[in-house]
Amino acid sequence: MTFIEDDFLLQNEAACRLYHEYARHQPIYDYHCHLPPKDLAENRRFSNLSEIWLEGDHYKWRAMRANGVSEEYITGPAEPYDKFLAWAKTVPATLRNPLYHWTHLELKRYFGIDELLNEESAREIWDACESLLKQDSLSVHGILKSFKVSLIGTTDDPTESLEYHTRISESGIDAKVYPAFRPDAALKIENASTFNTWAHALEEVSEEDCSSFEGFLLALEKRHDYFHKLGSRLSDHGLDSCFAIPCSRSEAANIYDRARSGHNASRAEFEAFASFMMILFGKLDAAKGWVKQLHLGALRNANARMYNRLGADTGFDSIAELDQIEPLRRYFDALDESNELPKTIVYNLNPKDNYAVATMLGNFQDGRVPGKMQFGSGWWFLDQIEGMNWQINTLSNLGLLSRFVGMLTDSRSFMSYPRHEYFRRLLCNILGVDMESGFLPRDFDLIGSMVEDICYKNAVQYFGMAAGYVE
Amino acid sequence: MTFIEDDFLLQNEAACRLYHEYARHQPIYDYHCHLPPKDLAENRRFSNLSEIWLEGDHYKWRAMRANGVSEEYITGPAEPYDKFLAWAKTVPATLRNPLYHWTHLELKRYFGIDELLNEESAREIWDACESLLKQDSLSVHGILKSFKVSLIGTTDDPTESLEYHTRISESGIDAKVYPAFRPDAALKIENASTFNTWAHALEEVSEEDCSSFEGFLLALEKRHDYFHKLGSRLSDHGLDSCFAIPCSRSEAANIYDRARSGHNASRAEFEAFASFMMILFGKLDAAKGWVKQLHLGALRNANARMYNRLGADTGFDSIAELDQIEPLRRYFDALDESNELPKTIVYNLNPKDNYAVATMLGNFQDGRVPGKMQFGSGWWFLDQIEGMNWQINTLSNLGLLSRFVGMLTDSRSFMSYPRHEYFRRLLCNILGVDMESGFLPRDFDLIGSMVEDICYKNAVQYFGMAAGYVE
Amino acid sequence: MTFIEDDFLLQNEAACRLYHEYARHQPIYDYHCHLPPKDLAENRRFSNLSEIWLEGDHYKWRAMRANGVSEEYITGPAEPYDKFLAWAKTVPATLRNPLYHWTHLELKRYFGIDELLNEESAREIWDACESLLKQDSLSVHGILKSFKVSLIGTTDDPTESLEYHTRISESGIDAKVYPAFRPDAALKIENASTFNTWAHALEEVSEEDCSSFEGFLLALEKRHDYFHKLGSRLSDHGLDSCFAIPCSRSEAANIYDRARSGHNASRAEFEAFASFMMILFGKLDAAKGWVKQLHLGALRNANARMYNRLGADTGFDSIAELDQIEPLRRYFDALDESNELPKTIVYNLNPKDNYAVATMLGNFQDGRVPGKMQFGSGWWFLDQIEGMNWQINTLSNLGLLSRFVGMLTDSRSFMSYPRHEYFRRLLCNILGVDMESGFLPRDFDLIGSMVEDICYKNAVQYFGMAAGYVE
Repeated sequence: MTFIEDDFLLQNEAACRLYHEYARHQPIYDYHCHLPPKDLAENRRFSNLSEIWLEGDHYKWRAMRANGVSEEYITGPAEPYDKFLAWAKTVPATLRNPLYHWTHLELKRYFGIDELLNEESAREIWDACESLLKQDSLSVHGILKSFKVSLIGTTDDPTESLEYHTRISESGIDAKVYPAFRPDAALKIENASTFNTWAHALEEVSEEDCSSFEGFLLALEKRHDYFHKLGSRLSDHGLDSCFAIPCSRSEAANIYDRARSGHNASRAEFEAFASFMMILFGKLDAAKGWVKQLHLGALRNANARMYNRLGADTGFDSIAELDQIEPLRRYFDALDESNELPKTIVYNLNPKDNYAVATMLGNFQDGRVPGKMQFGSGWWFLDQIEGMNWQINTLSNLGLLSRFVGMLTDSRSFMSYPRHEYFRRLLCNILGVDMESGFLPRDFDLIGSMVEDICYKNAVQYFGMAAGYVE
Repeated sequence: MTFIEDDFLLQNEAACRLYHEYARHQPIYDYHCHLPPKDLAENRRFSNLSEIWLEGDHYKWRAMRANGVSEEYITGPAEPYDKFLAWAKTVPATLRNPLYHWTHLELKRYFGIDELLNEESAREIWDACESLLKQDSLSVHGILKSFKVSLIGTTDDPTESLEYHTRISESGIDAKVYPAFRPDAALKIENASTFNTWAHALEEVSEEDCSSFEGFLLALEKRHDYFHKLGSRLSDHGLDSCFAIPCSRSEAANIYDRARSGHNASRAEFEAFASFMMILFGKLDAAKGWVKQLHLGALRNANARMYNRLGADTGFDSIAELDQIEPLRRYFDALDESNELPKTIVYNLNPKDNYAVATMLGNFQDGRVPGKMQFGSGWWFLDQIEGMNWQINTLSNLGLLSRFVGMLTDSRSFMSYPRHEYFRRLLCNILGVDMESGFLPRDFDLIGSMVEDICYKNAVQYFGMAAGYVE
Repeated sequence: MTFIEDDFLLQNEAACRLYHEYARHQPIYDYHCHLPPKDLAENRRFSNLSEIWLEGDHYKWRAMRANGVSEEYITGPAEPYDKFLAWAKTVPATLRNPLYHWTHLELKRYFGIDELLNEESAREIWDACESLLKQDSLSVHGILKSFKVSLIGTTDDPTESLEYHTRISESGIDAKVYPAFRPDAALKIENASTFNTWAHALEEVSEEDCSSFEGFLLALEKRHDYFHKLGSRLSDHGLDSCFAIPCSRSEAANIYDRARSGHNASRAEFEAFASFMMILFGKLDAAKGWVKQLHLGALRNANARMYNRLGADTGFDSIAELDQIEPLRRYFDALDESNELPKTIVYNLNPKDNYAVATMLGNFQDGRVPGKMQFGSGWWFLDQIEGMNWQINTLSNLGLLSRFVGMLTDSRSFMSYPRHEYFRRLLCNILGVDMESGFLPRDFDLIGSMVEDICYKNAVQYFGMAAGYVE
């Protein structure tokens, strides 16, 4: 039985035409993901579906737990095949969950498999994939080539040496791979011990003395320069909500000095320090024409027992309920005041805030860069049809969809490239339905060119990072 | 004119097939309602439509007030027929409100009436129903039989003797009727006078001395045991938001002692005491394998003038705006820490919180029970097509729809059983539309079995309370 | 290419029939807008599209900024045609934004233009419109006549002399034009200087000595009387959220006296004073049978740099994130307690609060006036298809859509009358789709009469302000 048809998700003729003629063949400009640079440099190969598909995939883990699967088969010591089988048994229980679509889209695009995955088909699919995974086309570099990946933006701590990025650029692959500057650790001054360890690593990689706050700032700026030198034009921050309370340089320095001498910052000190640093990071990005990404509103490690057992990023995170709007306004306003607000993408995790966030972004469009302030694509729990629909409609109604920089995988897995296809099908379907119902002009040049822009061209222009793929 | 057609709400062939082949004939497992046990025990009969349909139905009352109907015809002294006539005049004004669907579905299923209710048809419908209500098939027991009700979960204070439940089980009806433990009064220590009255009633029914906090806890546990003995596996709580601030047993005992000696607890004391009690209730449920229901986020008695005139539950309640997520996390985490988090259903009243609540539930799925943490069906103001759609989509996207325990009436009326039909039609329509648009595989065995699970089988398995109906 | 077809937005036969037979020919009862009374009195003429279309239209300005257009072409010194050209270039970038629909609907209805506006068509359209604008039919009075405008509710400060309203009523036009009492300035006691300037203006126009608080209240009441004498039955308030904390007359008087002697009120004093005044304004409206409008939840002037440069109402406002429910409850309850709650329309700007607000309104329906408490039409950022759909669905599910007073332009522009057409098409489409899918009875008398009520008749009855247009 074929589930992933050629016209999957495309509900009328216009949608099909938009997708097949304008979207389908575009390269992939995956400006934000969490792929390991080492795997990219070393052209990693995978021995079976457990390794390439289940390792680290906390979306699948959550589904398995909800389906009554014991932790032994999720993060525990069970055999790779038995873990895969536990997943295969869970798949039919995920009907209407995005996992059901992703699973079958991935089986089809990577392995040419049409069959539905379940307990009965598990063994056959496992065996078929195991032998296919031996082929070059399913090595990391083979995957990038078959999906026409033209650019990859990884996510990197300022203390990373970025040696793998250098090696990747020497490996001869078409795709360009750039780091993104993610200095979350530079804010975390509530825990002096981990902060100092991190400051020490920063000192080493930057070869700047971080015993003073000035040295710390200099070290960060040197790393920012180095990322820039490697071609990066992108930073990223994972925050509960924005930090933008007034904090002078000397106040920040005092908090820094106290932390370096072993005192944990109080909550108020942390917020002041984080505000100072975030303003500084904004200015660094603005000065170099970078794009700043803000991932707002995750509630992490909600389950203490499981956090103590498994650590972070294991599927115990959820959507927070926080005030986002006033902090966002203060942050943007503080940077805009001196014309130092960089191009910015906000990824909002709580859908109730979509409209307010999108209108706040509109307050800081300044007429210099088309689509300067971007309402980012549906993120994490919102990276599914309903969530992407909301994002597209919010942006359409309150901003300019035509200027949208489009999809990103945000993934830790090499099996996620079909997410771009999934997004493109959805986008073309929305536009095709609008065309056939008279909400948009029936003009394929007009709408098709908008499709091409959103799928690829806008991103190339907006980020200004050279792409590698040439047809 | 026939409004409630055979394929009402079913928009394509797949939806029709799912409903008529898989959903329609399932019995009703109505695990949560507010039906009076006395009426069930005594096989109540109703003399007219006012009595069976308007008494206590604050949904209809709100609609009548919004339509400019004077209170005289709602809760006042007007004649039964005149009240019905006022309702009949209001019905055409409720187009697009769920009341319009419910009204005609109920007239059709209970009385075989196809006509639209309005001022012109009122008298004829009144007369027809009055004579039909004399038949056995429209006594309480007759109704249960014709709707294939296999289980009823009532909602009961721990101080209830549950004598009617004993009588019901002896009455020979097919349906099993179980109480649910709803100890809201055990938290309400801000008003020492009503609290003490309640503690006294608890003392009487439990035959435990409640002068000490230990005695109070023992009495509650005995009642919990007694509910269990009658077959109940279900508790229920109506809360603004969860209580889960740390409170030791001795602190709780102090607050209790002060209340027993006549001092109203402060707001802070109330929250501490309620937190202690809610943790305790969670542990009681977990120990016996019960399901805990949390109804969160109602704002009750918003209109002081009408509350003083008519009391509670008269149609002056609405949706609150409260922080739900962090309290919910703390509550679940406190119980989970010691592996004492029971199976839980959260009914969320403010739809803006749907996504955050559903992801929080996912943090506490523990792999032991499929669908352990349930995102409950659209409740109260959300118990209509838009609200149920949101609940189904939220659960689908963020959890496992296939493990959903499905619909409940939550009703005070014996006229509400078609709500299960209404839900089933909606569910089948959603799935049928997905099938025909290629979002789900066109596999009726697969999707049909999911329909059967959600309509009936999941609930039987999840609650573990034996059902009574045998086809 | 014709984009605005006869059946624009109408997706089935029933929708077409409802629109063309029941909605289309209804006059326009535009009970709330921001049109300048002077233009109405003087029958203003416009020389080109920049003047009639772009001046003051901050929706378009925001889109242009997001599209990378420099401020020079928005609020700056560029030539009228160049500004229009900048807008024309932006139009294709607004696909899926309501501006795209509004733009072409307005070109069609005012100028008979079918062509899509873009860089290429700009000059031709500019020239054609320039010559058409010379015709009487495109003077202000000509426009009112062609759109069958039967009533206009302007928005007026109590210190306005309303001389233009007198002149309008003597001008012989069909449309009745009434002022609405908007006393926002009467609350703004945090800035003693602007408050005193305003109080002085009030003193002058009312000829009441405002040196005492009693005189101030008397002056306001005299102005309220004068608005009433001119036929107004409508007040309006733009508030972050409601004010309803207890504040006695003597407390309010003290705060007033201090402000009059030059002391800025503290935030707490402001809230107390505003609460007192809002209760007072509620009572004034209730006593005369007026309708009170509450516009809740805008976050204004979010961008400090641009506010300092361009002032207010220039496109730097957005949706606030504020607690609305409890303040709303307190405000309604305080007035309802003494039976002095007027008919009220709440316009809610943050869609996350739609459901909670609509249920709160239901708590204060009192059975005296059908649809007394109105959940107002999609406002500002919500005045587009998605936002209007939400408003219509919220009202349908939680109240009585059939009692809805319908659309208003809320506009500063004479080019906005097609918004009524846009709303009517959407409304008819929603109802037509419901009819053809069996969600509503296929009874055109029933649904068609509901359409007529919502488009026109409900408003005439609810506001009680005589309309001027006679077919």
